[in-house]
Amino acid sequence: MYQTLKGFRDFIGIDARRRAWLISQFREVFETNAFEPLETPSLEYEELLLGKYGEEANKLIYGFEDRGGRRIALRYDQTVPTARVISQYRNDLIFPYKRYQIQPVWRADKPQKGRYREFTQCDIDVVGATAPVADAQVLATVSQFFTRLNIPFVLKVNDRSQLIESITSAGIATDMIFSVIQTIDKLDKKSSDEVIAELREKGVSAGQAAKLFASFQNAIPSTSLQAIIDTAVSLGVRKAMMEFVPTLARGLDYYTGMIFEIILPEYAGGSVGGGGRYDNLVKDLVGYDTPAVGMAFGFDRLIDALVDLDKFPKDLGSSTQVLVTIFGPEQIAYSARTCRDLRDKGVSVELYADSTRKLEAQLKYAIAKNIPYAIVAGPEEEASKTMQLKNLSNRSQITVTLEEVVEKMR
Amino acid sequence: MYQTLKGFRDFIGIDARRRAWLISQFREVFETNAFEPLETPSLEYEELLLGKYGEEANKLIYGFEDRGGRRIALRYDQTVPTARVISQYRNDLIFPYKRYQIQPVWRADKPQKGRYREFTQCDIDVVGATAPVADAQVLATVSQFFTRLNIPFVLKVNDRSQLIESITSAGIATDMIFSVIQTIDKLDKKSSDEVIAELREKGVSAGQAAKLFASFQNAIPSTSLQAIIDTAVSLGVRKAMMEFVPTLARGLDYYTGMIFEIILPEYAGGSVGGGGRYDNLVKDLVGYDTPAVGMAFGFDRLIDALVDLDKFPKDLGSSTQVLVTIFGPEQIAYSARTCRDLRDKGVSVELYADSTRKLEAQLKYAIAKNIPYAIVAGPEEEASKTMQLKNLSNRSQITVTLEEVVEKMR
Repeated sequence: MYQTLKGFRDFIGIDARRRAWLISQFREVFETNAFEPLETPSLEYEELLLGKYGEEANKLIYGFEDRGGRRIALRYDQTVPTARVISQYRNDLIFPYKRYQIQPVWRADKPQKGRYREFTQCDIDVVGATAPVADAQVLATVSQFFTRLNIPFVLKVNDRSQLIESITSAGIATDMIFSVIQTIDKLDKKSSDEVIAELREKGVSAGQAAKLFASFQNAIPSTSLQAIIDTAVSLGVRKAMMEFVPTLARGLDYYTGMIFEIILPEYAGGSVGGGGRYDNLVKDLVGYDTPAVGMAFGFDRLIDALVDLDKFPKDLGSSTQVLVTIFGPEQIAYSARTCRDLRDKGVSVELYADSTRKLEAQLKYAIAKNIPYAIVAGPEEEASKTMQLKNLSNRSQITVTLEEVVEKMR
Repeated sequence: MYQTLKGFRDFIGIDARRRAWLISQFREVFETNAFEPLETPSLEYEELLLGKYGEEANKLIYGFEDRGGRRIALRYDQTVPTARVISQYRNDLIFPYKRYQIQPVWRADKPQKGRYREFTQCDIDVVGATAPVADAQVLATVSQFFTRLNIPFVLKVNDRSQLIESITSAGIATDMIFSVIQTIDKLDKKSSDEVIAELREKGVSAGQAAKLFASFQNAIPSTSLQAIIDTAVSLGVRKAMMEFVPTLARGLDYYTGMIFEIILPEYAGGSVGGGGRYDNLVKDLVGYDTPAVGMAFGFDRLIDALVDLDKFPKDLGSSTQVLVTIFGPEQIAYSARTCRDLRDKGVSVELYADSTRKLEAQLKYAIAKNIPYAIVAGPEEEASKTMQLKNLSNRSQITVTLEEVVEKMR
């Protein structure tokens, strides 16, 4: 029997509904904040992608030769295609270009719990604008999203250039900066002692490590980061929702200014997103020199968090209130008209799709789909323009008119 | 400079918004009619797809070997993956299974006007139910969709088995049926004489052709098709919107019962969708024997039709009413607070993302984005808690309070 490929997923019913609902929430918040949608093709010239994510990532790109002999590859992330778009349409786009993108990406990674070969990315960017307003807009958009969903959140913020300054001021060699940053990035999972031990292994002296950690203890936000925080507050982000974390590092090496991570205090599954300013990345990727700031939500993790925190709408599973059954082939017209009339009067209603199945099968269908009521109408009911309304949780049944059903379903 | 691959498209701004809006309309109509969403992976075992669309199509499948040595392929349509889903989850799904799917598919076709290598498919199916109710529900869903969009439409309907009956009754050999159907399918583009000539070339005698065309002239809907039409009327489809066309053939060979095509009389670009009953297809594809009826909308053609008929919402381009400019770095906080306050009061507002750009550049941005008003607030305005409201179409400017802006934007 045919199966889904390992690392790939089908989304059926409620799972697909959750994804669609989350995307609709993102769209509304992004559009309210004047981000415009962008869609790029699933396939690009492989050359565009190769080398853009580091040597290790090259092996994870789904690349192949098409029938025209071109090397092409499936989208690996949304940043590189966006950089291509910025470069390709530089004369048509209106800058600052504020875009959002919600599309699947593919990585030939080893499938494991929470890691898939096809998954949705969701990110926003402001391209062509410097700090602090653009950065603050990104933070404010994130804040509005979680406020809208009624989910407590904290934005851990830091300044990557301030972090680099701390590292070099401690006397650590310039060529070790990113290696040191990657070790510091582990502070949310490891103790200071463990992190210092790892730094020592990498060649940082005890004195340098001590100086570095002392600088963290006394740190206050840089002028530039403070301006971003202040502007975010003016835009409506509550001060208490932003936490300055001088050791916040973020793994990627391309950040140049503000960096941040989203933590949901009530959710134990880890950060649900983050981002920062990357003023050299677009130039590095496609040769077009423009500053940018952006962030990505962890889509699958957010789905998990929303399930965990019970934040999806209650009626997302099935909003159908009544199943109109079909007593027999002679009653098709009456049942269909009943369904139409109820729908026209605002009742969420479904007509059972097959007049040849027994009534018991039709009621089982309603119960399996969590539909609370069923209407049964035979020749007698049709003659008297009434129907039986069955409460499927207690199996009670009453004779009613259409108007009475409408009334009851309100 | 990096470019998009031939046959692939970027969707930027309004183009992406139109797509998202159309999808949201589909979703609402489908969900109202109790169809549930389905998403399948972009990649499947190539074996699932090969041979399912005919020999010619095999060449159009984007297939390749992954790093694990598996032959895999990109989705070619949504029917075959849906058949896999039905077979794979047959014990978990609740039948009749009513699903919709809106995802991209890939075909290594020669790119030409209106034909792309990546495009969105949008289709609905009722699986596990016989005629007439399921078939009528499909027609009613299509009808609701175009009624909602306020677009006049006609559903041309026919019964494939009735058509086959006409062909065999005319004395044409059974092994010629599908070849004859494919010729008859051209009747909307060619004259009867041309079609008869083609039939003659295929070996149909003059007498057979005459008998066949005479049967079309006298045809009335089969009992089964009439029951579907009647049920669709009971479900709210206006009788005049359904036209019985005994020569309607549809190209695909797998239809077994009702077939239909959607015509928009005010749109010259051709049929925007169609479908029918295919009771053997799921079994032929994956070995699971279940009846089914469904249809597909032509997504790209519908976008084209909606542009042509001017049916997209007027404010889809940019709904922003006011751009709040930033007079200078000292006014960031006042401008940001103004933006927040206006948004809180329901005004659709955008804060310009960069405090370092000249005012003229900011106003040019607003004009380029069709934003009708701009707010300018310097030190004087901040001190008096007022702002300048600039009408960007006539460049007039008035001094106003926040409340006056809210009032004016209503």
